[in-house]
Amino acid sequence: MTDLSELGEFGLISRLASKVGIGRSVVKGIGDDCAVLDGDKYYTLITTDMLVSGDHFNRKWHTPEQIGKKSMVVNVSDIASMGGYPVWALVSMALPDDVDLEYIDSLFEGMIEISKKYDFYIIGGDTTHGDLLVINVVIIGEVEKENLCLRSDAKVGDMIAVTGDLGKSWAGLELLRSDKKGYTEFHLEPTCRLEEGRKLAPYVNAMIDVSDGLASEVLHICEESGVGAEIYEEKVPISKQTKEAGDTLDKDPLFWALSGGEDFELLFTFSKDDWKKIEKINPIVVGKIIKEGKYLLNGERKELKGGYDHFKI
Amino acid sequence: MTDLSELGEFGLISRLASKVGIGRSVVKGIGDDCAVLDGDKYYTLITTDMLVSGDHFNRKWHTPEQIGKKSMVVNVSDIASMGGYPVWALVSMALPDDVDLEYIDSLFEGMIEISKKYDFYIIGGDTTHGDLLVINVVIIGEVEKENLCLRSDAKVGDMIAVTGDLGKSWAGLELLRSDKKGYTEFHLEPTCRLEEGRKLAPYVNAMIDVSDGLASEVLHICEESGVGAEIYEEKVPISKQTKEAGDTLDKDPLFWALSGGEDFELLFTFSKDDWKKIEKINPIVVGKIIKEGKYLLNGERKELKGGYDHFKI
Repeated sequence: MTDLSELGEFGLISRLASKVGIGRSVVKGIGDDCAVLDGDKYYTLITTDMLVSGDHFNRKWHTPEQIGKKSMVVNVSDIASMGGYPVWALVSMALPDDVDLEYIDSLFEGMIEISKKYDFYIIGGDTTHGDLLVINVVIIGEVEKENLCLRSDAKVGDMIAVTGDLGKSWAGLELLRSDKKGYTEFHLEPTCRLEEGRKLAPYVNAMIDVSDGLASEVLHICEESGVGAEIYEEKVPISKQTKEAGDTLDKDPLFWALSGGEDFELLFTFSKDDWKKIEKINPIVVGKIIKEGKYLLNGERKELKGGYDHFKI
Repeated sequence: MTDLSELGEFGLISRLASKVGIGRSVVKGIGDDCAVLDGDKYYTLITTDMLVSGDHFNRKWHTPEQIGKKSMVVNVSDIASMGGYPVWALVSMALPDDVDLEYIDSLFEGMIEISKKYDFYIIGGDTTHGDLLVINVVIIGEVEKENLCLRSDAKVGDMIAVTGDLGKSWAGLELLRSDKKGYTEFHLEPTCRLEEGRKLAPYVNAMIDVSDGLASEVLHICEESGVGAEIYEEKVPISKQTKEAGDTLDKDPLFWALSGGEDFELLFTFSKDDWKKIEKINPIVVGKIIKEGKYLLNGERKELKGGYDHFKI
């Protein structure tokens, strides 16, 4: 018996990816935030994320509306990270016995609110029974061919930046787990950066969304682009509220930023020459793409280690 | 609190469908086996089905390879029912702690075997942790515009036929539940009718796959097409093996055929004038589309009642 925690989530994905072939019109298969299919003027983007009760939300803390919203936002974020926009969604739900119609209505209201906010439509899905509340969302989007952003296009010398504060979702989760008051709003109702993604897309080289912590996303970009990176510890943006949560819980908010995940900010790399074009979205520069090695700099040069892994926590 | 069993699975789907709008290029949204998107020469078909441990498979009876195969087959069957063929798939999996790497490899081998059999590719997905094994598959397919088969195109006077024996999956399930020997092969490893669907598509009016029992599927076609139907009880095809299971368990195999589900045969309606074109696939005529009313005829004229409902059993 080989325990999954030895291999980890990303090891498992690589292992499965190595077993499948590449279909026709597939520009990018397993290994980015979305699968990318060729088209005439546009690429089609397809992403899917499964949210499981107890792992991705907690019915004690999250309202059904918040669960519905989150199930959509995590997928919109994947579309945003490719530079695209969502067009259609499909929703599968496994519903346990203790979920009533009013609960499902609220869940669905949350989903519809996000679909209206980002201008896409729910066109199908599946409803079934299950002993655990599970929601799987598929979003199909589009991106102009010239705007497609992959993990694999980072260039040596690129700046690395993010769109906003990190560690905020994990801070909220830890507060909720400890039954302490503080900044839990973002964890309960995360937002994503679709608008910023669209503005960035024409100018950035590589892009990814921060769903498993800054460190994990930087390592993904390094691996897919065949480059290295250095991250400046003091530049990692952590809000006052997240720092306060760290004080409350006697934990290091930097760890949450590097390894916590679910912040749904965009992380992207770009040439210094394009700074003028992207500065209007207020990017926060956190590091630089280098030839090889992955480092965290804070006076000394530490090895940058991976982030959140569903099978290792 | 409104219990879901009052509304049922199909009532819930209608309720949710009434809350969403229709996106651009959407030929058919919620309410058929696949969503249908417009294209130049072809329609794009998208379907998604979620399989939950304990509801859709049982880890005591099903091997991981069989679970992998079934997760794909149920979706291919939806594509077949629209007259199309599968092109790409995405797979989401929630994996509990007691699932090891060898188990996942076998699960995935089953999926790949079906993808090779039906000539499509797995291009993406999501792997995560969950306290229950849950698999969600999305299949994207295509159909020539002239071959699209909807539930809504049945015409008064059409014959109603199926591609093969019914009740066989439920027979196997009941045998397994009762720990009795007999014909369990089909329940453990269902097949679908993609080839037949492709041959039928140019000539049939309405088509659907039998996933919730003959009665349920006939009622769906009636509702979507605004027609009625009569089913001839003695024509409903039930195999010798399924009848033997009925004897073993002292149950009525006709009930399994009408209300059991998961047989993944195709049910279709067609004009008598097209009989010559479709007879080569050996269709079994089970009834006729009439103007109004839904009946089961066996000497008397009984009301045809719905099939399997995930929230009513």
